[in-house]
Amino acid sequence: MTPEWDGLLLDARLATMQANGTPYGLVEHGAIGWKDGTIVFAGAQSALPGDPSGLAARVESAQGALVTPGLVDCHTHLVFGGDRAHEFEQRLEGTSYEEIARSGGGIASSVRATRAADDDALFAQSLPRAKALLADGVTTIEIKSGYGLDVDSELRMLRVARRLGETLGVGVRTTLLSAHALPPEYAGRPDDYITLVCEAILPAAAREGLADAVDAFCEKIAFTPAQTRRVFEVARAHGLRVKLHADQLSDLGGAALAAEFDALSADHLEWTGDDGVRALAAAGSVAVLLPGAYYALRETKLPPIDAFRAAGVPIAIATDLNPGTSPLLSLRLAMGMACTLFRLTPEEALRGATVNAARALGLADRGMLARGLRADFVVWAAARPADLCYWIGGSLARAVHVGGRPIAR
Amino acid sequence: MTPEWDGLLLDARLATMQANGTPYGLVEHGAIGWKDGTIVFAGAQSALPGDPSGLAARVESAQGALVTPGLVDCHTHLVFGGDRAHEFEQRLEGTSYEEIARSGGGIASSVRATRAADDDALFAQSLPRAKALLADGVTTIEIKSGYGLDVDSELRMLRVARRLGETLGVGVRTTLLSAHALPPEYAGRPDDYITLVCEAILPAAAREGLADAVDAFCEKIAFTPAQTRRVFEVARAHGLRVKLHADQLSDLGGAALAAEFDALSADHLEWTGDDGVRALAAAGSVAVLLPGAYYALRETKLPPIDAFRAAGVPIAIATDLNPGTSPLLSLRLAMGMACTLFRLTPEEALRGATVNAARALGLADRGMLARGLRADFVVWAAARPADLCYWIGGSLARAVHVGGRPIAR
Ligand SMILES: [Zn+2]
Ligand SMILES: [Zn+2]
Repeated sequence: MTPEWDGLLLDARLATMQANGTPYGLVEHGAIGWKDGTIVFAGAQSALPGDPSGLAARVESAQGALVTPGLVDCHTHLVFGGDRAHEFEQRLEGTSYEEIARSGGGIASSVRATRAADDDALFAQSLPRAKALLADGVTTIEIKSGYGLDVDSELRMLRVARRLGETLGVGVRTTLLSAHALPPEYAGRPDDYITLVCEAILPAAAREGLADAVDAFCEKIAFTPAQTRRVFEVARAHGLRVKLHADQLSDLGGAALAAEFDALSADHLEWTGDDGVRALAAAGSVAVLLPGAYYALRETKLPPIDAFRAAGVPIAIATDLNPGTSPLLSLRLAMGMACTLFRLTPEEALRGATVNAARALGLADRGMLARGLRADFVVWAAARPADLCYWIGGSLARAVHVGGRPIAR
Repeated sequence: MTPEWDGLLLDARLATMQANGTPYGLVEHGAIGWKDGTIVFAGAQSALPGDPSGLAARVESAQGALVTPGLVDCHTHLVFGGDRAHEFEQRLEGTSYEEIARSGGGIASSVRATRAADDDALFAQSLPRAKALLADGVTTIEIKSGYGLDVDSELRMLRVARRLGETLGVGVRTTLLSAHALPPEYAGRPDDYITLVCEAILPAAAREGLADAVDAFCEKIAFTPAQTRRVFEVARAHGLRVKLHADQLSDLGGAALAAEFDALSADHLEWTGDDGVRALAAAGSVAVLLPGAYYALRETKLPPIDAFRAAGVPIAIATDLNPGTSPLLSLRLAMGMACTLFRLTPEEALRGATVNAARALGLADRGMLARGLRADFVVWAAARPADLCYWIGGSLARAVHVGGRPIAR
């Protein structure tokens, strides 16, 4: 008899992340089976419907290793030209942030380098960053535009993001973040630039089906709530869900604004007040925390984590991988930072990089190990889920599967 | 004609770390040649003594990549049984440090697990940690004892450390740190335990040639300056150089004590005062900074870095890889933390993980790219030295050579 399933992994400690009454939805002596890219079994090995050796074309033993859902990095800016290592060095050698900005540094330098790079160069520069995330267990990556800031360059970033997903065989979700910064040619005319976003960039991205969501950076150094609202209204008119860089450096009411537009997520949130927390809870939006930026900027203001817990706001963790404030190449390290710097528990951190991160992307087909979901999972060189947050650096992923297929690294 | 050298790497950007008047001792368009495990050429490609293709049995191009000396991790505790991920999780779930200690947690649990593990188990548990360091560019590792705390277990830790070096083909330096913590069987009798260290453990380690240096933990929660002095006097009598865990949580005058014994290094040093800085400078001891523990413990007291700079104390950076306060698997990440958390420049951080780290181990044969030194070098997936500190996490090492031989990973 031909085996029915494509693959079956035995002797695994499954952190299913299902609500089964145990921490992490843990199943000891577990097994996971898949067929056509979908999980057909995830549970106790003793509950397998027959002799394991005959169930699948490929049967392997995890030898007791921990198996988790593939990690979901729900907030990255990993497509960009150039990098900012030189500015990082200049700042540490005593050059002020202002001097660097005056000499064309900061986000402006990433915009210049991104615009100057052709498609292949942008792809080639971004590929190792995506590979680094995968190597440490990520199987779905959200990638934002926001360093192009004109119609062509913004769409190009999103196309490169999609191409990364196709090349690597991993899930990529694209987010249009044209309201990220003011391009130099619009200096002093932010409302005119927002008009360009609303009337040209966003409609073009929607027309070409290049954006899965729309994001904005609502902050004193970026765009006002009123400008953000204009972008969100156009996004809604095009049927696109929104996300928001909110309350990172000050409380402009970003979380409440995001909630008003039924946002998938509000991100950063260091300065979010009680009103914002309540609004997110009511809207069911996810709070995406970005400890990499907090670490790299040596911030001291913590997001209101207890308030999120009390209000039942789902918390996700992401790398925020970007050239300026978070050149962070490992989501697992971001999870560890969430524990060490934000005092999340390892279970909250893993939930934040799996099921809640999937929700922050509007994806119901991944983030847990459960029958019917995508067969995205990671076999770890670790025995217990807390190990993933405990070890700092290194690479613990032993095998990464996307849709049942192992990713070559 | 048979080529004279074993290997030659062309088209490299060499961070030689020599004092050649440029930052990092940088040589653009550089080449490095080696023979019998030793560097025979490191400099401008144009200065090679003949046609490159005929100079060496193996000639390759680095294609413009950055090449640095192999990194030296001069302070680790990477041989231990068990781990403390469960305690990490308990603390984040609200269990107090006292409760954990009362139930046998903390360093006592590492001592129990280390004593209980046989040689092969201890080796097998430690091997992946050593491999993780190598994978990110480390070619020499210092490894301390200190979880055995009796004659047999302490010597066993040092033997396992040596075996790691032989198995992996990397440099290992062993340090006897029996004065690390008080073993339970000596509770209330620290002076008696120090007598055991001085009369039994240290002499046995010296007799078997198992220790390259001797270390102690001088702190209110560990051993007093007087007890430390007893250990150092016996070390000196056996011709062994000393190092000291000094001034991490309070200023007990540890740095000055280390300097008095002509220490290779004093390590941690968050609370070291001006007297200690002057003493280290006069003794020529290295200040080994451990930002991983600072990060994991969420410390806020910075070591007196400006004072070290002003006094000319050489600064080294290490992982402090240990199960309790720094489960850090990447020296490159420690370098980045030294920049972000301690405000070292990337050049200081790289110097701290190469030439100054070698000095902290008393090794003059490595830590720079220079004729006559060991052919320990790393080819990086990076163009400039600052990249090594800028990127957080991931693995940037493309090829790691020890004594000219590439390490299989
Ligand atoms: Zn962001
Ligand atoms: Zn230590």
